[in-house]
Amino acid sequence: MAKKRPTRATSHDVARLAGVSQAAVSRAFSAGSSISKDKRERVLKAAHELHYVPNKLASSLSTARSNMVAVIVGNLNNPFYSESLQAFVTGFQESGRQVLAFSVTDAADGDEVVQQAVYYPVDAIVVTAAPLSSKLLKISAGLGIPIVMFNRHLDSNRIAGVHCDNRGAGARIAEAMHSAGAERFLIVRGDPEGSTSRDRVEGFRTYLLARGVPPTGIEEIDGASSYGASRDSLRARFRAGDRPRPDAIYAVSDIMALGCLDALRTDLGLRVPGDVMLAGSDGIRQGRLSAYDLTTIRQPIEQMVATTLQMLESAEDLKNPDMIQVLELPGEFIPGSTVPRPPRDKP
Amino acid sequence: MAKKRPTRATSHDVARLAGVSQAAVSRAFSAGSSISKDKRERVLKAAHELHYVPNKLASSLSTARSNMVAVIVGNLNNPFYSESLQAFVTGFQESGRQVLAFSVTDAADGDEVVQQAVYYPVDAIVVTAAPLSSKLLKISAGLGIPIVMFNRHLDSNRIAGVHCDNRGAGARIAEAMHSAGAERFLIVRGDPEGSTSRDRVEGFRTYLLARGVPPTGIEEIDGASSYGASRDSLRARFRAGDRPRPDAIYAVSDIMALGCLDALRTDLGLRVPGDVMLAGSDGIRQGRLSAYDLTTIRQPIEQMVATTLQMLESAEDLKNPDMIQVLELPGEFIPGSTVPRPPRDKP
Repeated sequence: MAKKRPTRATSHDVARLAGVSQAAVSRAFSAGSSISKDKRERVLKAAHELHYVPNKLASSLSTARSNMVAVIVGNLNNPFYSESLQAFVTGFQESGRQVLAFSVTDAADGDEVVQQAVYYPVDAIVVTAAPLSSKLLKISAGLGIPIVMFNRHLDSNRIAGVHCDNRGAGARIAEAMHSAGAERFLIVRGDPEGSTSRDRVEGFRTYLLARGVPPTGIEEIDGASSYGASRDSLRARFRAGDRPRPDAIYAVSDIMALGCLDALRTDLGLRVPGDVMLAGSDGIRQGRLSAYDLTTIRQPIEQMVATTLQMLESAEDLKNPDMIQVLELPGEFIPGSTVPRPPRDKP
Repeated sequence: MAKKRPTRATSHDVARLAGVSQAAVSRAFSAGSSISKDKRERVLKAAHELHYVPNKLASSLSTARSNMVAVIVGNLNNPFYSESLQAFVTGFQESGRQVLAFSVTDAADGDEVVQQAVYYPVDAIVVTAAPLSSKLLKISAGLGIPIVMFNRHLDSNRIAGVHCDNRGAGARIAEAMHSAGAERFLIVRGDPEGSTSRDRVEGFRTYLLARGVPPTGIEEIDGASSYGASRDSLRARFRAGDRPRPDAIYAVSDIMALGCLDALRTDLGLRVPGDVMLAGSDGIRQGRLSAYDLTTIRQPIEQMVATTLQMLESAEDLKNPDMIQVLELPGEFIPGSTVPRPPRDKP
């Protein structure tokens, strides 16, 4: 049914029209190549006439690079994922690569989506969401397509990747709350299968238990990694009158923390941090808006993307099990206004 | 330097190992094809052993479709663009297409970025930002790559596209403010070169002038399409004591309106809408958060993406000047709490 697309002009066509060799056409389109001004102009004129543009993919057949990288992101309603996707698009574009974007909304689909990705001639796959099955790892290894994990890791460390120090993030939030006098803690957790939520919860708990907080002083509810679910579940918890209320809430991601903040202030009429303190993690832009000014740990997204790029540039290392790197970068504590700040030490 | 990627197994390799014809391999991977269960299983087993996956691009050589669509987005710090990108990624993926993302931060780079896009074997280019030069239109026409404009349009209507009724959006905001009793209006404009800001400003002005508001009652300042610039420039305007203050502010995009709202409440200590009313346009998620609850006009992003898809599916029409469609969809008025609502008519 569909008509065939008009054939692209080839470098051969351009060479013939310009009266030069095919190699000269190639040089005319390569920055810094040695070619006379006159010849370059003839090539460009012919190329223009024939609507010729050098096809990066065609030229990649010899270098085995397409300059396309598949980036698999999670639910884009979470600003952390949309901000990560932005950072990939802009960061990769600067290095001459383009992002072929794949979205996984349901964890169960992850495997299927990553398999879709290998259908395309991508140089590499960056996985920011989705569990990785061993079957998939076999396919990509067989095809020689390297995989880098972003913001998550396997316990085995068999896959290269970069993530934030999430245990450290949880511990740092616990420290800020504990030193501000909190005694009854509530964790609003995200996806229990994901390493990010798990590590943050663990870091938070471990810090508090080590400071003598009894296990009964640390409650946990589910925020399902979303604004709405967190808002609903925190409101329900506070309206349940049978238990003492927590005085400090750690929502393990900012988008959940914003849901909690709106539940506390708007739905329950409570003051934050006056009545209850609250913090998140990720450092998304929404949390930085004046109306929220959320206390949080910022993930160094730009640095994480730059690190991912470096890993892709030494792609051969990614195929060598002895060279696989799993980097953990520190997050940055952002003292917002939702956890009381310690009185400043006088110099 | 870089080693060559291991060669992908071909359907020929799979056919040989499975002891079937190449056509059988193709049928085994096509949903609904007629092939015996036994044969299909042999093919899948062989494919698995050889790490073979059907290469969509290779198969697209015959159908002239790659199932990749270049989407060129503007500054991703504006949530409208990141939400649009999300809608494209998820909407296109559902239809079996993947988004190859390009970002244009500086309007001047637009032309160059779109030219990058044609280097890839994309089926089409969706332009949500970036001016389109006639040179570029020639190249894409010559290559038979259709272009669809999203959220902007040329006065000539020579390029297919879909956008929101932005004049209508500006007029609807003007109506809400005028009927709430506003008398002195301030417009915070975005990119004066973009059709979106221009049309919204025009719709707003035209409505008010027709209602007898004098031209001197409509002031205009520049918000440079960003949160920070709008916040700064509104604060400066309100601190300049030499002119009467406006009582109604229309920031032509939500991200600018949020900057204005934080300037008014946080920096200037004013009540919104008590001291001054404010509205935006776009309907971004941040504006819907309880702490802002911005009065706005929501662009029907999902519907606009679906319309773009329909246009791409009748790609032949896009090449026929007589069939070019430029669709304008109505926005939805979202009565937030930043413009006083009219008293409800009693039934």
